[in-house]
Amino acid sequence: MGKTLVQKIAERASGVKDVQPGMIVTVNVDIAMMHDSTGPRRIGKTMEKLGRKVWNPDKVVLITDHFTPANDSVEAEILRITREFAKAQGIKRFHEAEGICHIVPVEMGYVRPGMMYVGADSHSTTAGAVGAFAIAVGSTDMLGIMVTGQTWIKVPETIRVTWKGNLPKGAMAKDMMLALISKMGGDGATYQAVEYTGTAVERLSMDERLVLSNMSIELGAKAGVIAPNQIVFDYLAERGVTEFDAVYADGDANYIREVVMDASALRPLVAKPHAPENVDTAKNLEDEGVRIHQAYIGACTGAKFTDLEAAAQVLRGRHVAPGVRLLVAPASVRVFRQAVEAGIVTTLLEAGAQFLPTGCGACAGLGHGILAAGEVCISSTNRNFPGRMGNRQSSVYLGSPATVAASAVAGYVADPATVAGTDAIGTEVAAVARGVAE
Amino acid sequence: MGKTLVQKIAERASGVKDVQPGMIVTVNVDIAMMHDSTGPRRIGKTMEKLGRKVWNPDKVVLITDHFTPANDSVEAEILRITREFAKAQGIKRFHEAEGICHIVPVEMGYVRPGMMYVGADSHSTTAGAVGAFAIAVGSTDMLGIMVTGQTWIKVPETIRVTWKGNLPKGAMAKDMMLALISKMGGDGATYQAVEYTGTAVERLSMDERLVLSNMSIELGAKAGVIAPNQIVFDYLAERGVTEFDAVYADGDANYIREVVMDASALRPLVAKPHAPENVDTAKNLEDEGVRIHQAYIGACTGAKFTDLEAAAQVLRGRHVAPGVRLLVAPASVRVFRQAVEAGIVTTLLEAGAQFLPTGCGACAGLGHGILAAGEVCISSTNRNFPGRMGNRQSSVYLGSPATVAASAVAGYVADPATVAGTDAIGTEVAAVARGVAE
Repeated sequence: MGKTLVQKIAERASGVKDVQPGMIVTVNVDIAMMHDSTGPRRIGKTMEKLGRKVWNPDKVVLITDHFTPANDSVEAEILRITREFAKAQGIKRFHEAEGICHIVPVEMGYVRPGMMYVGADSHSTTAGAVGAFAIAVGSTDMLGIMVTGQTWIKVPETIRVTWKGNLPKGAMAKDMMLALISKMGGDGATYQAVEYTGTAVERLSMDERLVLSNMSIELGAKAGVIAPNQIVFDYLAERGVTEFDAVYADGDANYIREVVMDASALRPLVAKPHAPENVDTAKNLEDEGVRIHQAYIGACTGAKFTDLEAAAQVLRGRHVAPGVRLLVAPASVRVFRQAVEAGIVTTLLEAGAQFLPTGCGACAGLGHGILAAGEVCISSTNRNFPGRMGNRQSSVYLGSPATVAASAVAGYVADPATVAGTDAIGTEVAAVARGVAE
Repeated sequence: MGKTLVQKIAERASGVKDVQPGMIVTVNVDIAMMHDSTGPRRIGKTMEKLGRKVWNPDKVVLITDHFTPANDSVEAEILRITREFAKAQGIKRFHEAEGICHIVPVEMGYVRPGMMYVGADSHSTTAGAVGAFAIAVGSTDMLGIMVTGQTWIKVPETIRVTWKGNLPKGAMAKDMMLALISKMGGDGATYQAVEYTGTAVERLSMDERLVLSNMSIELGAKAGVIAPNQIVFDYLAERGVTEFDAVYADGDANYIREVVMDASALRPLVAKPHAPENVDTAKNLEDEGVRIHQAYIGACTGAKFTDLEAAAQVLRGRHVAPGVRLLVAPASVRVFRQAVEAGIVTTLLEAGAQFLPTGCGACAGLGHGILAAGEVCISSTNRNFPGRMGNRQSSVYLGSPATVAASAVAGYVADPATVAGTDAIGTEVAAVARGVAE
């Protein structure tokens, strides 16, 4: 019987010869990522007590994104602790306020195909988009990794999700994930790995692939992986990364479940309050007339370059509706710079958008963009649990950046096609969503 | 005996024939400005109790800048109250998150020469830069104005400050004010108006004039006014404003005090912790080696277009020092858009700056950019009182945007000339500082 992608990486990382799902193995970690919230402030003192240093500072990525720039002196103190830890431990891959912890390791080329990647944040599955086995742990497990360079995993079963067909005009990777979560449920892949495949996936740009792996955690998955192809190799090559050991599932790999989805039938979707699985079409909600107060384009999931590009495509020559705030927090400083240079920032500003600093921000109820009681937000982020965006008395809808932009213009949840016309958004947004392979 | 500029406006606004300093008169207010912190949330309920509406919604300017975008649900609720007040009262000049309350009324062309302007914020003196009599009141007085359109003033004596000569290369209006505050003291003009004149003032751009009027409050002044000339008229004409009644002091006006300053002798200055009057030269502090953690370019005083331009001039082709954070919060969305289009945002991003949303922000200890205990910041803002920037255990130095930018590159308080060379910064920065008249 053949093996799945994650099974093979677990084998390589553990040194165990025949790794099977359900086995508990100890793996060597290739990259361990922590951020300002889960990192030094929680584990630094214990490491001191233990008298131990980081096992290999070159394999540690430390990011500040939750509390930066600081909103109060408590946050400022956490950032100080984080900086001092980086310095004391000789961590060179320390990125302060340069972007969100799930984006920076990818755009810096740190995470590579075949790697065993562990991050101290639930959406650390994101790195699976380059073909790594990327999992999330809590701070206590991360403390163990920092000291030993190892952690234990129960090798997961793998579900294969095949997206046949091609994404239609205006639909994005976010819509793929909302459709899948709606079908499988928020616990549809608990402690299982999901491997995405099929023509629609193969054609996705790097930015869009990240969405699939990122939101796998909303299925309860341990990991969400995509076998790397030329799109990924080109992306890595642009970052000077050419050495890695890409891993692929065997043709006769043992999948616990097969799910087949049709990309060409996909329409822009929206998750209603208060769960990502509570999905309807943007068009249906448009007909219901769900009035919004805020539209948010942000987070690791929804504020990459192609996300801002898709929003700009909808917003060009249009303006945010009166009484609606459109907030944009780019996923990284590099994204922001690229968007400035491409004229996207100007387009969004002309449309009435406000730019926030890069970081987790309002997605996690931090920084600017918190809602008042009774307010409604449509957001390009990944979670709409009660209180997630900082106020339990608010309601959050999730959609693609194109859908968020369209809703900002309409003043209510709207299908991008209604606002920008099918042809107008079609060509370019679809080109974004379909990636460079076409 | 002739009359001063503010005396004449008080006369016109009160209808009293011969207004003299010391007299208490009731004036009709031409523009009343409130913001999210001092405005509706404090006076709305009392107005309801009184059963009164705003006396003239077209004369009210309402700005959200302290709590926007909201950092928590309390701030979000204050913003909701502010929006609903604007709507209920029919206030069309309601600007949400478009910029700081002292900048927006000027850049929108609301405040004009000869006007009686009252703002519910200490730095409301800023509007004096167009030749208005602009004063600050608290929320209780503003409540009275909202209901009656009138307020009382004790007509102030006027101090005339004459800046002879021309600003040298690299010095800015901020240096003029630090020099003046250092000379006169933080209570040097208590309840007096300051009228700025002389060749160096006449040549200042509109952006730079605002700094003089803005920081007059740091002398304890009731108002800081500048007789409008062609630079102001051109600025207003660009905004379609051609009708106003400019007021000028008589040649034989009675000034309580004359202060003569020499602009050509001015060097970049820095106010040390914890008062704007605690001034030394940037060069002296550079020699002392005052290490900084944060450099902040923000606020009504220090984040206008020419401020960002001056910073870009110093930062072009350079990078912020390791361990230093350079935060930039443009004074308005218009400033930010202009800076994007002029390539200034790109220059600052390349230098390692982080952009924050427009608003009062860290200057007032709000939003992003709060310091940790023991940290040192150099800031283009107007106040460095203990705790002003959000942490009483931090230290804040004040300087021009050029000095802040230079310090960010050096990693310690530095003279712009040291970092960027006298010639390099000289020509362009000085052109900014000297305004369009040259």
